[in-house]
Amino acid sequence: MLAACSGGADSMALASALAFEAPRAGLRAGGVTVDHGLQQGSDARAAEVADRMRALGLAPVETIAVSVGRGGGPEAAARDARYAALDAAAERHGATAVLLGHTRDDQAETVLLGLARGSGTRSLSGMAWVSGADGRYRRPFLQLDRHTVREACLAQSLPVWDDPHNVDPSYTRSRVRHEALPILEKALGKGVVEALARTAQLSRDDADALDAWAARAEADVMTTAPAAAGGAQAVHLDTVGLHGLPTAVRRRVLRRAAIAAGAPAGSLFARHIEEVDRLITGWRGQRAINLPGRVEVRREGGRLVIRQG
Amino acid sequence: MLAACSGGADSMALASALAFEAPRAGLRAGGVTVDHGLQQGSDARAAEVADRMRALGLAPVETIAVSVGRGGGPEAAARDARYAALDAAAERHGATAVLLGHTRDDQAETVLLGLARGSGTRSLSGMAWVSGADGRYRRPFLQLDRHTVREACLAQSLPVWDDPHNVDPSYTRSRVRHEALPILEKALGKGVVEALARTAQLSRDDADALDAWAARAEADVMTTAPAAAGGAQAVHLDTVGLHGLPTAVRRRVLRRAAIAAGAPAGSLFARHIEEVDRLITGWRGQRAINLPGRVEVRREGGRLVIRQG
Repeated sequence: MLAACSGGADSMALASALAFEAPRAGLRAGGVTVDHGLQQGSDARAAEVADRMRALGLAPVETIAVSVGRGGGPEAAARDARYAALDAAAERHGATAVLLGHTRDDQAETVLLGLARGSGTRSLSGMAWVSGADGRYRRPFLQLDRHTVREACLAQSLPVWDDPHNVDPSYTRSRVRHEALPILEKALGKGVVEALARTAQLSRDDADALDAWAARAEADVMTTAPAAAGGAQAVHLDTVGLHGLPTAVRRRVLRRAAIAAGAPAGSLFARHIEEVDRLITGWRGQRAINLPGRVEVRREGGRLVIRQG
Repeated sequence: MLAACSGGADSMALASALAFEAPRAGLRAGGVTVDHGLQQGSDARAAEVADRMRALGLAPVETIAVSVGRGGGPEAAARDARYAALDAAAERHGATAVLLGHTRDDQAETVLLGLARGSGTRSLSGMAWVSGADGRYRRPFLQLDRHTVREACLAQSLPVWDDPHNVDPSYTRSRVRHEALPILEKALGKGVVEALARTAQLSRDDADALDAWAARAEADVMTTAPAAAGGAQAVHLDTVGLHGLPTAVRRRVLRRAAIAAGAPAGSLFARHIEEVDRLITGWRGQRAINLPGRVEVRREGGRLVIRQG
């Protein structure tokens, strides 16, 4: 097991808890800290965090320097680089789990960020308790509030370091944390963080159930899907079967089929799927619809034919 | 058709649009304004709003004085009294539809209020386009933003009246409108209102699909449900069938069954259903669970027995 630790209060409390519990459970426990190289002196800072983890009794402890790209904005790029480094560290050390210090407050922020995307139930489901390849990532603090975790640091006199990015208003998450959530609490009452975290769990359960239904329904309505000569796969769906599905399931099936035919998931928006859906629910002889990734959808009699051009 | 009009910009624009469109569509169109009696001079105000509707050409036009109770807080009590009055007016005039002036901004506020409850996908689905008995209530402005609707009033020089409750910070909705949404836009970007409105539609579709699944699943897992001698109905559910359902569906089935056995829906919270769910997913010989409305749930071998005591 590895604790991923930035040196902040949440992950220092996690590292401390792991160092305390692991020997009692007969587990080997180490720690990793990632140096994102985004601030001057970040290497010295990472070395100090590593020393603190060693002082807690974790072994082995490693610092990993990464270079952060620019894809998807600064926060996404830093996250991508961090998880790649943590994945590599887990492989290198043969760790079955990497523990992350996300709290219920982080979960609430993630739900608000998902809400801003307006892309539905899955985007409201926040972070999972267990995620990643083979369920590698675990978030044992996901139901604890940040205040409790910080008190644990104080009680143990753990030295902590607050990442200046966390209060930098040029970061969306920082604005959500320091501006949006306090005002929401003022407007809606003290239980907002808890309500958002509960929304995450309920949304995750709902999205899982609907995805399972869509997978079954897709198998039912998919007729022959002959591999095209050029290599791109054409998907054929039965329009009568599609018509009988609830809107939420039908649109998920259409999205799955478009992705199977080669449309890139990240470029496929709700308005694309709604337009495809009108070939089923509002058929009046529309022409073929073009989706991202040169995927074309046309209705041919009782079939929807989805193929990459 | 009746327009429900408070005299505010949104519903004055609606009354004006209805007065313009109805004769062209060969429809009879009248108007109703409700005097909640919550402010001094509200009766004179209502008479003035009625005069304005008559001036637009609506007929018949009616003012209805209601007395607002206290159940569920001041906003809920006013709403209950208003809809009861509108229902009665629709019956009296034989109106097939009552049009309401809710905009996309109102929808966004409703989603945030639902989010604060933290009770899941249904509570995020906002207001429906069509709702009420026989689909009586219609919200034709639900995809228009408030700014557009107000500009329509300006363009027609319609006199409008701003209800002081709309800016009274003792009302939750007013705080959401004037404090929470502007800060959310600042933190998350300009598209927040649109994202919240889209969330409403996606959540409604998802909740409808899951409710349909739960209704089917309930029929599948419900075994004999003999009417008890005392009148209260016992519901018997098959635990193996329940265990095979996804969490989101199983908990909806348990909720439906508890309500069918007599538990009041409004007092049945997620924590109740989670506790009942552990009789299925975490069975270790627990004793019977008590739900609101003197409903008791116990596991007896391969059955869950839900009955009112």
